[in-house]
Amino acid sequence: MKDAISSALADFFFEYETPRQVLVRSKRVGIVCRLIQLGVLAYIIGWVFIYEKGYQIEDTAIGSVLTKMKGVGYTNVSGQERLWDVADYVFPEQGDASFVVMTNYIITAGQRQAKCPELQDGKQRCTSDSDCEEGRYKRTGNGHMTGKCVNQTETCEVFAWCPVEDDRKIPEPPLLMAAENYTLFIKNSITFPQFEVVRSNLVEGVDSKYLKKCLYHEKNDPLCPIFKLGDIVKLSGFTFQEIAVEGGAIGILIDWICNLDYSLRHCKPKYYFHGLYGKAGEADKARTSLGYNFRHAKYYTEDRVEKRTLMKVFGIRFNVIVRGLARKFDIIPTLTAIGSGVGIFGVATVICDLVLLYLLPKRDFYKNMKFKSTTMEEEVNGCASPEGDLNLADVTTKDTAPVKE
Amino acid sequence: MKDAISSALADFFFEYETPRQVLVRSKRVGIVCRLIQLGVLAYIIGWVFIYEKGYQIEDTAIGSVLTKMKGVGYTNVSGQERLWDVADYVFPEQGDASFVVMTNYIITAGQRQAKCPELQDGKQRCTSDSDCEEGRYKRTGNGHMTGKCVNQTETCEVFAWCPVEDDRKIPEPPLLMAAENYTLFIKNSITFPQFEVVRSNLVEGVDSKYLKKCLYHEKNDPLCPIFKLGDIVKLSGFTFQEIAVEGGAIGILIDWICNLDYSLRHCKPKYYFHGLYGKAGEADKARTSLGYNFRHAKYYTEDRVEKRTLMKVFGIRFNVIVRGLARKFDIIPTLTAIGSGVGIFGVATVICDLVLLYLLPKRDFYKNMKFKSTTMEEEVNGCASPEGDLNLADVTTKDTAPVKE
Amino acid sequence: MKDAISSALADFFFEYETPRQVLVRSKRVGIVCRLIQLGVLAYIIGWVFIYEKGYQIEDTAIGSVLTKMKGVGYTNVSGQERLWDVADYVFPEQGDASFVVMTNYIITAGQRQAKCPELQDGKQRCTSDSDCEEGRYKRTGNGHMTGKCVNQTETCEVFAWCPVEDDRKIPEPPLLMAAENYTLFIKNSITFPQFEVVRSNLVEGVDSKYLKKCLYHEKNDPLCPIFKLGDIVKLSGFTFQEIAVEGGAIGILIDWICNLDYSLRHCKPKYYFHGLYGKAGEADKARTSLGYNFRHAKYYTEDRVEKRTLMKVFGIRFNVIVRGLARKFDIIPTLTAIGSGVGIFGVATVICDLVLLYLLPKRDFYKNMKFKSTTMEEEVNGCASPEGDLNLADVTTKDTAPVKE
Repeated sequence: MKDAISSALADFFFEYETPRQVLVRSKRVGIVCRLIQLGVLAYIIGWVFIYEKGYQIEDTAIGSVLTKMKGVGYTNVSGQERLWDVADYVFPEQGDASFVVMTNYIITAGQRQAKCPELQDGKQRCTSDSDCEEGRYKRTGNGHMTGKCVNQTETCEVFAWCPVEDDRKIPEPPLLMAAENYTLFIKNSITFPQFEVVRSNLVEGVDSKYLKKCLYHEKNDPLCPIFKLGDIVKLSGFTFQEIAVEGGAIGILIDWICNLDYSLRHCKPKYYFHGLYGKAGEADKARTSLGYNFRHAKYYTEDRVEKRTLMKVFGIRFNVIVRGLARKFDIIPTLTAIGSGVGIFGVATVICDLVLLYLLPKRDFYKNMKFKSTTMEEEVNGCASPEGDLNLADVTTKDTAPVKE
Repeated sequence: MKDAISSALADFFFEYETPRQVLVRSKRVGIVCRLIQLGVLAYIIGWVFIYEKGYQIEDTAIGSVLTKMKGVGYTNVSGQERLWDVADYVFPEQGDASFVVMTNYIITAGQRQAKCPELQDGKQRCTSDSDCEEGRYKRTGNGHMTGKCVNQTETCEVFAWCPVEDDRKIPEPPLLMAAENYTLFIKNSITFPQFEVVRSNLVEGVDSKYLKKCLYHEKNDPLCPIFKLGDIVKLSGFTFQEIAVEGGAIGILIDWICNLDYSLRHCKPKYYFHGLYGKAGEADKARTSLGYNFRHAKYYTEDRVEKRTLMKVFGIRFNVIVRGLARKFDIIPTLTAIGSGVGIFGVATVICDLVLLYLLPKRDFYKNMKFKSTTMEEEVNGCASPEGDLNLADVTTKDTAPVKE
Repeated sequence: MKDAISSALADFFFEYETPRQVLVRSKRVGIVCRLIQLGVLAYIIGWVFIYEKGYQIEDTAIGSVLTKMKGVGYTNVSGQERLWDVADYVFPEQGDASFVVMTNYIITAGQRQAKCPELQDGKQRCTSDSDCEEGRYKRTGNGHMTGKCVNQTETCEVFAWCPVEDDRKIPEPPLLMAAENYTLFIKNSITFPQFEVVRSNLVEGVDSKYLKKCLYHEKNDPLCPIFKLGDIVKLSGFTFQEIAVEGGAIGILIDWICNLDYSLRHCKPKYYFHGLYGKAGEADKARTSLGYNFRHAKYYTEDRVEKRTLMKVFGIRFNVIVRGLARKFDIIPTLTAIGSGVGIFGVATVICDLVLLYLLPKRDFYKNMKFKSTTMEEEVNGCASPEGDLNLADVTTKDTAPVKE
């Protein structure tokens, strides 16, 4: 038994099979097939390896963003001056990746819980008390209906924060055009967990000295993380004055595409800006619901009564989006690409064989060269000779005429 | 030298190798092997290509979300009426992808910095001043202990916002059941950066006219981006009244699965709703810490003293999650799939050969057909004939008897 | 016609081709080639399958996070006691994945819209009114210049929230060192949409009983989702006192790596902590702009005048980042890996053949064994015999001497 195994092992280790091949000496076939094979090789090396970098593995980044606005705005509405600083015009205040800069507003001062008629905007009209069912409210309404129709305004009386906000007329030009000159500082850190690489957008060369005076410019200062709001709006294809009136949403994409086979120094961010919900000049305005606003209330107590200042804030919502993609050499994709390339090589061989065996005039000659046939099993069984299997083989090949091979 | 190279090149280009094959004419072997090969082919074409679309590359989306709530709530607690509008019940106010709608609350009005006894909730009990170490605070406590035990309440005196909040009893039914009828408008934009495709959930057909009156319905209006809160809660498997009392967290998944080989019009969002932390009817309530609340304070000054109204807000936290996956034809995955398929074809051949050479009764016959042996290297070296290598080959094959082949 | 098709089909199904091979009986060649082949096999099985789990597909998670802080802080600035609770020191209040815990602050009480001189911080110096152009503002300024230079302070007069904030001196030690003892509770739910698996970080064993008293500890309680702020800061490599003064940003990474071929019970989160923008002890402090602060205002009305309390908040910004990766057996990557492995096997064969045909001393012998040549097409055409293609083959092989094969 032991002998049998060791002999089988010896057989296995001392023998080597390699396929027998026909060497077709033919200019036509040779050139066609070599060109097909060279094409496949060029594809594998040129496209898969060099262009698509198939020898690398990918990892996407985990990012984190801090933002900080700077600048002050000044309004003068019917003689009442007011200054707006960061704490006033940024929502939320703590420097999130997604934030709103107020550019326009409708203020409703001194609201308190009370009963008052609804806004005369055409949607809340009533003719008699029966139009204003008590205790219900309308989708576009501001409060709870008391069941009374106010003759003077021809609208239902509601229990609400009174007086109700009148947002029928949006100030134009926008009240805070100064927002164009505010600056935004973005701090972004990314991690490629698989490669254990951490990078910040304050790359080499962007030190505190540079930060003090730089301002992002597409060509001259593409790495400066301080942006003028007006520049961002312009680069995303909008006009500031236009977007500032009713607000809008702009995406700031920080794009990291890093080839970690090179030095980490080359792993630098790129900044892109684009409108998130349709562009300013888009044809089908009906479809895209442009504009962005929300309501913000400041509560206070006056003469022991709770009051609030309601602001309908129109603003530009900035979304800082981080996309990171790192690539690095790895043995697995390399070998997978090679292995799969060899497979495609096999396809090339199959195509050449088809040409050789079915299309060329001398196809039958090549078929004979390539194939050695056994006779049909059934026939062989019929004339089965008494010799052992080994001899049978010789007999079979002998019997078949003309000798195939 | 030049001649040698050009001759080698000519050899390379004018020759073509193709493996020689045995054509086994056997019904049994033929059918088995053809079926295996057809199976592999069916797998590659049917599964990898058609079902899994292996000829396409994938890209995941970068998404951005805006939300806007509409609707008013009305409470009447012990005769005190109050109306709640969007600025009152949504946190944060600016329409983020993740936000909270207040459905219930415990209000503690007129808090000011002072000394007062801790809450009698059983956790803060004291019997003497020594139980209340000055300057320390307890994990469940509301303030800094002053070192005094208040006899009346049998709790430590603390320096805190006084009076301390009493959250032992949560109002039931929830105070803002009206939240069920609020509506939520979601604006979602996605970008597939690799394919340079931008889509918004306001797809073709969802125009401002449709938006004015539509309401999301699973079957009738699956593309309307306006949702009734009650519907969302129901579709995620909760009962509104139940979740409204102590709050909860619900995920709104916007799912984009786009085949960009077709027209962009077919790239449409689907909305799914699910509870984020366990379901309402779940067995092991002990494990899943249901409920969601946070504390919100409104600060004001009364008689030159800073005061605040503290609210323990119970609410439903909505998380709008965007998942986008686009696929498009690309040459690399196509060829990789084909190449790898040819490889699997090779496996089929190996299996058939094993059957042929080891399992069939006529295995030795086939072995002889398939293999041509050289004699052992060592032996050959022993009887090395003086002829050139080319003749040696003939000799060797002649010498070996019976003639293998 | 029908006959022809059925005959072709019969041919196809009853025939099977298998490559003819040379069995090279040579110890040297055998061992070298077998070792190469075994190496490839070991790589495919050991590395691709077992180590890299190439038989599995991957899915990344969609996560959602809720956070809740507990604890109170106490400050005593020049005799004025003040207690800070959750509603005071967490921004935003509603328990987002990204939030700020205040550790230090500069308070500017009673600001109102008025005219006052700019801060004497050296950046706003003026010598005459001409240095202060009316209606403009400086990037580092706090308001709108009125065109007047105030002699007393040698700075421009501005219309701003007055008095302007003086942030030249940051309190040290930080006012809210107590933040070190606050606790943070994280609730995290993840979904693997492809596998339809939902998990929460309150895994088996983390029930309400355990939650009441546990505190995260790297080794003893690695699954407890309640963290002491001081511990988080320490584990991320900072000193609390250091980071608390000027603030900082810390990432809390919840890492889910799940092998879904095993029971779901083994799918557990791991918590990692790291500084997001450089480490405390980093050499190039000039480059990394450490510190984190923002401005927060509380508005109130006093004597019918709107005022605000401005706070420059220094704090630690926590970013809870969820990374989920699940793997599960799937037939496609398995077969792709096998197919690509067979391809690499082909590479091994090619290498062995190169050794056999070009490096061994008996290379010509092996070449003769492996290849059967046809004569050049052109020559053959020249002496084309009148026999049919089948006979031609015999003739050709007969003519060529010495008989190749």
